[in-house]
Amino acid sequence: MKLNKTNLEQRLNHLYDVIVVGGGAGGLSAGIYLQRFRLSSLIIDKGKARSFWMQALHNYLGLPPDTSGRQLLQQGKQHYSALAGDFLEGYVEAVTEEVNTFTVRVKVGRQNSRHVKFYSKYLIVASGIIDHLVPLDDMQTVYDYAGYNLHVCMVCDGYEMIDQHCGFFAGSETSIEEMVFNLSWFTPKITIFTHGLFEVSDQMRGQLQEHGYRLVETPIQKFLGENHQMTGVELVDGSVIALETGLISMGSRYHNTYLQGLGLEMKGSNLVTDKLGRTSHPRIFAIGDLKVGLNQVVVAAGDGALAATQIWREIRKDAGPRKWLENVKVSA
Amino acid sequence: MKLNKTNLEQRLNHLYDVIVVGGGAGGLSAGIYLQRFRLSSLIIDKGKARSFWMQALHNYLGLPPDTSGRQLLQQGKQHYSALAGDFLEGYVEAVTEEVNTFTVRVKVGRQNSRHVKFYSKYLIVASGIIDHLVPLDDMQTVYDYAGYNLHVCMVCDGYEMIDQHCGFFAGSETSIEEMVFNLSWFTPKITIFTHGLFEVSDQMRGQLQEHGYRLVETPIQKFLGENHQMTGVELVDGSVIALETGLISMGSRYHNTYLQGLGLEMKGSNLVTDKLGRTSHPRIFAIGDLKVGLNQVVVAAGDGALAATQIWREIRKDAGPRKWLENVKVSA
Repeated sequence: MKLNKTNLEQRLNHLYDVIVVGGGAGGLSAGIYLQRFRLSSLIIDKGKARSFWMQALHNYLGLPPDTSGRQLLQQGKQHYSALAGDFLEGYVEAVTEEVNTFTVRVKVGRQNSRHVKFYSKYLIVASGIIDHLVPLDDMQTVYDYAGYNLHVCMVCDGYEMIDQHCGFFAGSETSIEEMVFNLSWFTPKITIFTHGLFEVSDQMRGQLQEHGYRLVETPIQKFLGENHQMTGVELVDGSVIALETGLISMGSRYHNTYLQGLGLEMKGSNLVTDKLGRTSHPRIFAIGDLKVGLNQVVVAAGDGALAATQIWREIRKDAGPRKWLENVKVSA
Repeated sequence: MKLNKTNLEQRLNHLYDVIVVGGGAGGLSAGIYLQRFRLSSLIIDKGKARSFWMQALHNYLGLPPDTSGRQLLQQGKQHYSALAGDFLEGYVEAVTEEVNTFTVRVKVGRQNSRHVKFYSKYLIVASGIIDHLVPLDDMQTVYDYAGYNLHVCMVCDGYEMIDQHCGFFAGSETSIEEMVFNLSWFTPKITIFTHGLFEVSDQMRGQLQEHGYRLVETPIQKFLGENHQMTGVELVDGSVIALETGLISMGSRYHNTYLQGLGLEMKGSNLVTDKLGRTSHPRIFAIGDLKVGLNQVVVAAGDGALAATQIWREIRKDAGPRKWLENVKVSA
């Protein structure tokens, strides 16, 4: 059931089989599997998963390409709820472990918040990441286009940029190094914006020039366009640069602070897992963008199925087989 | 484009980036990604993927639970076709490799067949498996219920069987050992049918009795029911056993004979892969049910994304970055 500030009391003493942190594609897919495995699960979602911002998923098998991330999430929530899974809008502040039980501390409600604890045997961490956007005084001019023709994922949306003049909004020289030359697979018409945030080395300047990519270091005043179609940027010096599409590559915020103290193995900012999503802790699984791997909605959905199934196998094994009691002959 | 006997000539001398063997969930998802990566791909599909038989997917994130496998496949084909991917209905007979190029021999058409060859740099094998069903004189009585309430996958459909009297149709004592005690997680009301195909050891008989599971060794004459709802079986001796649901576990046919001779590493009947789906051959990826892992539609779809993306990375790397030519200054 849908939990909220007023009805969550009845679950405070419940030991869930699994608490899933994050109600994005990975968490919802895991939740659907868990409930179908007759396990008790609670999804705690802070809202606005990364896919929430996608106006068109484009590459998710089974859904028309213009399906939005929001529609996928809505369908997933309905599906999970129809299977009687518990769902709570809240922010997970910390997780601790005692005697094979996780305690999950949650802040519920932005105003007059309640701080409550839930308990589980297993944990699936599916709280994902969110992209840093270009930091402007008026962020609305970013929000107006992000997820439309101002993209954050080349694998998802490179196809939409083919041979278009693309603004590449970099957070560091590393992001230029790692992305721009690959972006040219889709379009070589690239103008790189540093927004004045970092220095570009002479070596990189040379490489960009050699490839004909433009470099703009003057900070951006605002994005221009209408009806969610970005048409360029205005710089702080008043000059305007026309663009047909954009890719923001300024790093991501990882929603994983609640995991501090659990000592999970990391590779950079990502959790290391095995093929089933198990982290270095045997009862914590990580799925979707938090783990090492490809950040794609359909991959996260598959991850959810794998982690949930493995957890079910373990819980089932611990429980042992059930008898068909009316058929068992009692020896005299 | 959709290839057929009459128009395939124009592709016979084309070197595809990737040929995908199998147009089920994994193959279609891979194809969608490949086309969006601007790679040239051909899906060769013999038709009737395992998911084709599923009347309701139940657990695929983003689709209402009553969506059929057929609808998912149809949407996937439309999606792939809209991205200008090549699709051929045909049966892959053999794959050989020469000088880093795969030759894929295909039989097209059941009558007046043509035998043709296609070429590619990479291969994604996604041809899956199909379940052996109970072998009866009148197979129609199996087909009438298979995919409705006569299931082949416990992970997919265990939930549908909760506390129902379930007929378990075993192909061997091993299938009883591996499945029946797990099936009891969903329902302990289990009657096992050997169909007279194999002997059951005394030890197993003891275990079944201890759990109250019934054992029927008389061969089955036919399945009973109406409107695709199986209600029981009639045995060859004329007796009738009422059932509410069923699970067939008689092994699977692996659609992998065309891979013989490539020396790929196997684990049992499954191909061994790394996390991205790469087999022991660096340019052959295996996805979905053919590989070691969980046989689930959403997992296969994720697999397709992973394999396609890795292949793109390699091809892109080989090709190197593109220049924005009009901007490159030619030194005097």
